[in-house]
Amino acid sequence: MNYSKPLFVVTISFLFVVGWTYRPVADSMPEDEAILEKIFDHALSNGQSETYLRELTKDVGPRLSGSKGAARGVNWGELKMKNMQLDGVHLQEVMVPNWKRGPKEKAYVESNNSQTPLNICALGGSIGTGKGGIQAKIVEVKDFETLGQLGREKVEGRIVFYNRSMRAQMIQTFRAYGGAVNQRSMGAVEASKFGAVGTLVRSMTLKLDDNPHTGGMRYSDEVKKIPSAAISTLDANLLSELISKDPDAVVNIDFQSYTAPDTISHNVIGEIKGSKYPDKIILIGGHLDSWDLGEGAHDDGAGIVHTLETLRLLKAAGIKPNYTIRGVLFMNEENGLRGGLKYAEEAKKNNETYLAAIESDRGGFTPKGFTIQTSEERLAHMKAWESLFEPYGGMMFVKGGGGADIGPLRDIADALIGYMPDSQRYFDFHHAATDVFEQVNKRELELGSAMICSLVYLLDKYGLE
Amino acid sequence: MNYSKPLFVVTISFLFVVGWTYRPVADSMPEDEAILEKIFDHALSNGQSETYLRELTKDVGPRLSGSKGAARGVNWGELKMKNMQLDGVHLQEVMVPNWKRGPKEKAYVESNNSQTPLNICALGGSIGTGKGGIQAKIVEVKDFETLGQLGREKVEGRIVFYNRSMRAQMIQTFRAYGGAVNQRSMGAVEASKFGAVGTLVRSMTLKLDDNPHTGGMRYSDEVKKIPSAAISTLDANLLSELISKDPDAVVNIDFQSYTAPDTISHNVIGEIKGSKYPDKIILIGGHLDSWDLGEGAHDDGAGIVHTLETLRLLKAAGIKPNYTIRGVLFMNEENGLRGGLKYAEEAKKNNETYLAAIESDRGGFTPKGFTIQTSEERLAHMKAWESLFEPYGGMMFVKGGGGADIGPLRDIADALIGYMPDSQRYFDFHHAATDVFEQVNKRELELGSAMICSLVYLLDKYGLE
Repeated sequence: MNYSKPLFVVTISFLFVVGWTYRPVADSMPEDEAILEKIFDHALSNGQSETYLRELTKDVGPRLSGSKGAARGVNWGELKMKNMQLDGVHLQEVMVPNWKRGPKEKAYVESNNSQTPLNICALGGSIGTGKGGIQAKIVEVKDFETLGQLGREKVEGRIVFYNRSMRAQMIQTFRAYGGAVNQRSMGAVEASKFGAVGTLVRSMTLKLDDNPHTGGMRYSDEVKKIPSAAISTLDANLLSELISKDPDAVVNIDFQSYTAPDTISHNVIGEIKGSKYPDKIILIGGHLDSWDLGEGAHDDGAGIVHTLETLRLLKAAGIKPNYTIRGVLFMNEENGLRGGLKYAEEAKKNNETYLAAIESDRGGFTPKGFTIQTSEERLAHMKAWESLFEPYGGMMFVKGGGGADIGPLRDIADALIGYMPDSQRYFDFHHAATDVFEQVNKRELELGSAMICSLVYLLDKYGLE
Repeated sequence: MNYSKPLFVVTISFLFVVGWTYRPVADSMPEDEAILEKIFDHALSNGQSETYLRELTKDVGPRLSGSKGAARGVNWGELKMKNMQLDGVHLQEVMVPNWKRGPKEKAYVESNNSQTPLNICALGGSIGTGKGGIQAKIVEVKDFETLGQLGREKVEGRIVFYNRSMRAQMIQTFRAYGGAVNQRSMGAVEASKFGAVGTLVRSMTLKLDDNPHTGGMRYSDEVKKIPSAAISTLDANLLSELISKDPDAVVNIDFQSYTAPDTISHNVIGEIKGSKYPDKIILIGGHLDSWDLGEGAHDDGAGIVHTLETLRLLKAAGIKPNYTIRGVLFMNEENGLRGGLKYAEEAKKNNETYLAAIESDRGGFTPKGFTIQTSEERLAHMKAWESLFEPYGGMMFVKGGGGADIGPLRDIADALIGYMPDSQRYFDFHHAATDVFEQVNKRELELGSAMICSLVYLLDKYGLE
């Protein structure tokens, strides 16, 4: 669009803009309007969101629990918080799993004496194939029921290939993910019950490309551990077509991942002391660890940025909170949740109580709303704030979960709140080598910081009753 | 985020998903719910949006009015419509301006015997500098008022450098654009009044990078035409800093753009005949022309895709419209609006009337709403449809302009409607070499097609009274 030529175009542009941007907000909240404006102005014209993310993704890099990158992340987060002159910054020790991917995975399929390479990556927690890899025929299934019907006779000695797609017609991509991810998390256990020697899982993404997407998987003590890897969506399609023509095609997978002994890591915690209710906490957090393939930019660099920038914006906007505002950079959400569990354990030991715990772990995209786990009354109380967000594109306050890291706080928090940005692009990058700084839009990230900071301000001012 | 480990994470995920996805829709509209579901399912799991866009951007390419690319675009659009078995497809002849950029522009700034290259591009419609370019000192201003105060004494013989930024704190980026774009559109006329020999204009984008953004500019018969170019935001910052240190720094700009005689081009028009009110039209359109630097993917490949896919989806969903549904691929929105003007002229000659004209010309991003130019009563009537869109992420029906191409229809249309996607990323790419296929997300584009098709269905079923 152009908008610069004839007069009526300018008129249209003006109507469009005025009609949508200026909406009446309840007259009773002029101070709130002013504060929110200040927060958004700071975040968008003078914010640190992009700088924080660049440092975390480019200087610190990938941050798999137990890795040197994760340790660098802890140091970086602590330094950022200390530079903010908070009322207290400390590290909370936590033992984390220490899974190592090893050298880049190799895979190919052999059919009619011709070898075709496949893009795969080991799933987090998987054992390796051993040197020389595993060669086996393939059995393709879309769900565990079909696998069970095939039974040991058809499965034993084979690699089970789980090839159920995320459903494109689901508007909420997290729902599509939820409908497919058991193949990744439980696929090895189910396949091993019938004597499979390994699994390949279609990557959890709606995008058709060559990037395999890693992610957590589990074993059971009841059955033998077998190596498990994700395969890119394009290669999943290719493999499916190939074995439909040649059921005797043999796949070779070769990777040397392993789990080293648990190691020490840390949650990073910093706070602004409350002036009225210092013992009641509003927590905002994200997770500092990431998978190793990309830079953990959306997952969950964005959440770390939102956390740090919320603290910084509160100070920049001159807000002196009533409650204690605590930022937490959780360790090990991806493959163990040890940070979240440890944090809650300590919080309970110290008899802490929380007005609210907010988590940002759904990427750095344009804000849509908050999903809130609390009583109907409190939710209704919060929904009254929606109108304040209308000048900023709107925010929905809806019933829903808070997030993995803050989940263990549910008994001592009046509300668990998850930040909900637009979800359409999230799984294009999630757990893949493409989850990098360049895929995060500066303004979308900044809007998230401002939205969360504004929510913290409103929670702090009005409480939940 | 992970979502696959402990049970409570799964519970949270489930709550999140169910809480947000299933919202009650008015019981009186079960048929509409079913139709919208069908439209969205088709668009997301079996849609042509991405394919159309790939063909238009990669096979057809850039489509500046009068260029071979624009002619290819006309042929392509006609072919797509004919393949859809519409009730009528035809080309509408229209004379268009024929501006040519010439070879890649060159520019540098010379200060203390050192030359620093600058990223510039000629503005659409600009005359060239002549061979050897123009060498002149710079006068930097942020607005026309300051320029007037400086007057001829400070401006004559210089290049005027307009360096007012789009305002980052404006949430609606179109508003920020509207607040800066007069530098580009009217800057040459204003500078020429005081004897300037050329202008450089800070690119109309919120992104700091090396890409200059072109766009339309005007001359006046009252003053001498002077060559005008856009400079990248990073180089605008650099130039500003440099001349603050060395006011005698000399800039050289060199480009050979020119305007050839008007040439023949076409609007592409196709329709599905209405069964009840064949003489009243619901129009959906975008513009087929684009600037020459990128591929015209968001501006306005997305609008062309939305138009074609709406027609296809109506047929795929088995909808037999009451009104005539007409798709129009307008020519020459960017530098003349000749297509929109010609279309309206013919429509009026033929005494056509329009229930609504819908334009998509704000990119292929996640849907936010529709901006609507109509009576309060009709707007209220339409707002009742908002709830139907809640399962798809929500759509706001708000007062606002329709779009440039459909503007001339305002006297014969009951409503002018503009599709409004999220605007945060739009000006990163707008009129620049970066407006390419790869910057459009498949799902975001598809959602737009489904939203517009759903609106057409509702307009067709319920009318506007």
